[in-house]
Amino acid sequence: MTSGPPSRAQQIRGFLQENRLRAWLAWRPDELLMLSGYFPAWGASLLIYFVDAEPVLFVPLLEPRDHMPFGLRVVEYPWGDIKCADPYAVLVSAVAAELAKANANAGEVGMNFSASRASLPINSAEQMPLPEDFATLFTSLSVGGNAAARAGFANLYLRKTPEEIAAIRLANQVANIGLRAFVENLQPGVSEAEIAASVESAITRQIGENGVFHSRGWAMVQSGPNSAEAGRFNRSSGRRLRNGDLVSIELATCVNGYWSDLTRTEAVGTTGSEAAEILSLVRDAQHASLAGIRPGAIAGDIDALARDKIAAKGFASFFTHHTGHHVGFRYHDPGFLLFPGEPAKLESGMVLTVEPGVYVPARGCGARIEDNVVVTEAGHEVLSRIAGSA
Amino acid sequence: MTSGPPSRAQQIRGFLQENRLRAWLAWRPDELLMLSGYFPAWGASLLIYFVDAEPVLFVPLLEPRDHMPFGLRVVEYPWGDIKCADPYAVLVSAVAAELAKANANAGEVGMNFSASRASLPINSAEQMPLPEDFATLFTSLSVGGNAAARAGFANLYLRKTPEEIAAIRLANQVANIGLRAFVENLQPGVSEAEIAASVESAITRQIGENGVFHSRGWAMVQSGPNSAEAGRFNRSSGRRLRNGDLVSIELATCVNGYWSDLTRTEAVGTTGSEAAEILSLVRDAQHASLAGIRPGAIAGDIDALARDKIAAKGFASFFTHHTGHHVGFRYHDPGFLLFPGEPAKLESGMVLTVEPGVYVPARGCGARIEDNVVVTEAGHEVLSRIAGSA
Repeated sequence: MTSGPPSRAQQIRGFLQENRLRAWLAWRPDELLMLSGYFPAWGASLLIYFVDAEPVLFVPLLEPRDHMPFGLRVVEYPWGDIKCADPYAVLVSAVAAELAKANANAGEVGMNFSASRASLPINSAEQMPLPEDFATLFTSLSVGGNAAARAGFANLYLRKTPEEIAAIRLANQVANIGLRAFVENLQPGVSEAEIAASVESAITRQIGENGVFHSRGWAMVQSGPNSAEAGRFNRSSGRRLRNGDLVSIELATCVNGYWSDLTRTEAVGTTGSEAAEILSLVRDAQHASLAGIRPGAIAGDIDALARDKIAAKGFASFFTHHTGHHVGFRYHDPGFLLFPGEPAKLESGMVLTVEPGVYVPARGCGARIEDNVVVTEAGHEVLSRIAGSA
Repeated sequence: MTSGPPSRAQQIRGFLQENRLRAWLAWRPDELLMLSGYFPAWGASLLIYFVDAEPVLFVPLLEPRDHMPFGLRVVEYPWGDIKCADPYAVLVSAVAAELAKANANAGEVGMNFSASRASLPINSAEQMPLPEDFATLFTSLSVGGNAAARAGFANLYLRKTPEEIAAIRLANQVANIGLRAFVENLQPGVSEAEIAASVESAITRQIGENGVFHSRGWAMVQSGPNSAEAGRFNRSSGRRLRNGDLVSIELATCVNGYWSDLTRTEAVGTTGSEAAEILSLVRDAQHASLAGIRPGAIAGDIDALARDKIAAKGFASFFTHHTGHHVGFRYHDPGFLLFPGEPAKLESGMVLTVEPGVYVPARGCGARIEDNVVVTEAGHEVLSRIAGSA
């Protein structure tokens, strides 16, 4: 009998012990989500996760309280109080007091310093609403940990628990409702932006259904010659679809804090043989990589399964990116890539994208197909292919 | 004859000279927009703005090139090149070479270190796709400037040029198309999330029209008792509208990089006298503050015009936030607030929100009304009230 991935609490405790840390200060939205299941609305919350005591979550006065997880103590600080001149000073003092109380106040506390590449909070119209020097406020508490600890923290993203996989599955189910709108809108005369708007709208409308309290999509649609650019960037323009176009959609979906990252490419009406060849090749390549996903498989080998198929048809130089990355706590989780020569081994609980693409400007078209797949004891499960889905 | 606000180039050169900086390294999306008119797609670009030489813009290999401004040199670096192991090392070397060439390589170059509170790039599904230590990579070049220079940089956001005001006006025009969808959807049985979806969809559909190449809205709709929370946070839920509800929409809109920040509150059908009193009071308070906007007016006095009206009716404790903030390069630009006791004076070219609100949980309702107004030589112009608008 094999055991599943370690629980989240086991993983975090192992990380803290291995790095001789008494606690970790988590403040980026994906850190908070991973360490506690809590996804912030404002993005100005901070969690102290102790190696041997109950976690303490500091939230702004203004934070909604209807989706707080169990098993942690919630403390308010006066962010948003019109009469408080410096809520961050209050927060730093309160953190210092908690660390002292838990005897964890002497250079044994770790923290990430930058929000780069972190998930956006629910209130996602700008980056995190913190002062520029937010992380440095905590250096007065000898907080920091060493670079090795920060690198080690990134490993916590790799193996998802069953509860986290269920949440990522839900994000993929909601994303599929968006993809249905994509397929329904594939008509000559409809603009890329109009399709994107319909897809994102379908995703937002899921709020309030089936346990979804937060749902937002970012749909990037590229048609005809624009699809040949989809390996460089993703962006919807005002271009209107024509019969024979290939149309790509890159779709990021965040549901309750958990992310799905999907791509579909479809033809409008009847497409020419050059475009059809590319689309068919990318489908075959993606199937090949997916089929190889299992515990113990080498990341570079999974990449090669798709890349070799594409190279065999003479399109190697048109597949210009990696075959996949970790996903779930962010649109792009940290961790190794499915990439040429990458030696890392897949383990059960890992959730990866598989997304080969071929983009040929001279043919005026490109294609990418991307799914999200969880590595299971038995092999893998594709989370993003729902019965009847696009 | 009075002169308008200084040109952007004049403002930047003045800032650099005053702080004895030979150059500034801009990399946050709103910095790039303000210093050059360029809004990044990926958010991994960097601009060297010299005090006395042509600016140099470094963009990723993958960056689209169809919206590059005139008057700067564009240099590609290998971000996105599958064969390049460390594109940032290439970038830092290239920046060092440009600084050396311009004789600006000795501790005289300024830079912001954190992306907190910056605008999102076009590709906005996550925070900026840079390594955690991005800013520190440049400390090897003795880049930094002092804290006073960084504080001075924030002042560059305050006075917008005529071209920038035109761009912010366009963002408000697009936002108003979204607000029309808000009003049209105010029917019993429609959910908050469904309204938000319709508003955001209307905004995204403007891509390709009238010079709009990027358009995205974040609509946050709160109805009935949820509107009483709108002073604490903004978030659309699955709640369905009922006759008599007050419904608030907080709407952030980004068009080509420039931001509008609006709020409307409307009643569904016939509302009770308690809700009607609040809505009418907030309208009066907002009109009072707007009427006071002119060059030389004191920010605290503008706040008092609204706050005193609300206090006179006994609702002082239910107006829990500032009356306004700067807006345009971000959803919330840096700068002074319209806030009790704030001594700063308004100047022509400043663009501010005016947004008093009253939220009364015991009455199960709240209201805020928010417009964007530019200070003009003659007084002010409300950018967000379009003929026939909501």
